[in-house]
Amino acid sequence: MTEIKHQPIQNFLDELASKSATPGGGSAAALMGAQGAALVSMVCNLTIGKPKFAEVEVEMQEVLGKAEALRSELTNLIQADIAVFNQLMSKYGLPKDTDEEKVQRSAAIQDVLKAATDVPMQCVRACAKVIQLSKIAAEKGNPHAVSDAGAAVMAAYGALKSSALNVYINAGSIKDTIYIEAQLAELEQVTQGIEQVVDSIYQTVKARL
Amino acid sequence: MTEIKHQPIQNFLDELASKSATPGGGSAAALMGAQGAALVSMVCNLTIGKPKFAEVEVEMQEVLGKAEALRSELTNLIQADIAVFNQLMSKYGLPKDTDEEKVQRSAAIQDVLKAATDVPMQCVRACAKVIQLSKIAAEKGNPHAVSDAGAAVMAAYGALKSSALNVYINAGSIKDTIYIEAQLAELEQVTQGIEQVVDSIYQTVKARL
Repeated sequence: MTEIKHQPIQNFLDELASKSATPGGGSAAALMGAQGAALVSMVCNLTIGKPKFAEVEVEMQEVLGKAEALRSELTNLIQADIAVFNQLMSKYGLPKDTDEEKVQRSAAIQDVLKAATDVPMQCVRACAKVIQLSKIAAEKGNPHAVSDAGAAVMAAYGALKSSALNVYINAGSIKDTIYIEAQLAELEQVTQGIEQVVDSIYQTVKARL
Repeated sequence: MTEIKHQPIQNFLDELASKSATPGGGSAAALMGAQGAALVSMVCNLTIGKPKFAEVEVEMQEVLGKAEALRSELTNLIQADIAVFNQLMSKYGLPKDTDEEKVQRSAAIQDVLKAATDVPMQCVRACAKVIQLSKIAAEKGNPHAVSDAGAAVMAAYGALKSSALNVYINAGSIKDTIYIEAQLAELEQVTQGIEQVVDSIYQTVKARL
């Protein structure tokens, strides 16, 4: 099958709306995050090379480099979310007739549940970074593109909160309490006060429109 | 040029990140909104036809119909935002050598500025409706898909807030005060308390995970 990122937008939306389990919210979140990163890059690209913004040139170059790396990572997560979900479904389909099979099946499911948690956690981390970068873009980027910095922060925030749900889902099924407590603690740390951060960036954008 | 919705996701993201003014935050917002609508449809499609959810069957059919209409509308707004921006740029490029030319140019710009405000306003209205539908999906949809309802509300919210910025941008340049005050009043009405509505839907989703 053609990788999602090479498929037309209309196909992706049709598949998203359909009753097939993938792509679902996890892939949509990754695409939202990638859009957020792309919009940060757009602001940088509309700022870099203009004598008027020479003072922030080096910083914008740095932000652009980071935003492009995050965009690439998030774009790949669209597909990664589908892959790990399908893997999980295949493990749930393993035979469970004998005690030995039951043990093997359960262990296989537990392994993939961790992978299925790592994917949205990666999305959460990347989106938290996009939010930080959108702050710089909103404060120092070309004011003609500041609304794009505003769309960037809202896209990354929506993606982060959507991905968090996919971590919470798995939390209840993962038996390795050390692993899952670490994930939930990190999630708590990233999401605490994020609403205020996002709102403050949004207000910066509005003030510079 | 091929319409955006028929282009691969990767192309759209590359164009979004580039220094070309379109596609920008307005198109990204419309795509986010379309993703939100698609995710509401997904929850409906995973609920409809299952005997377990027979009680909400009729309501979910209704929600699906509305979500699909909004998805189509929002998907078309991806392109509409680009079209109206390009139109605006062409009007700014009109000659302004004589007084008559100046008057004609200014009138042409004012006309298109309204169209350039109508597009994000349409996106705001559609996304507000997607948020309402995501509430029903979150409360009554198949609990196995409830995280998708959560991603739906976050996508629509991000889209709504991003589109609002594109209304605010134009507000300062539009001379027809009756028109723009009406738009801003509607925007105020739609956005007031939206954070609480979105958070409440998100908490509903978390509780049903």
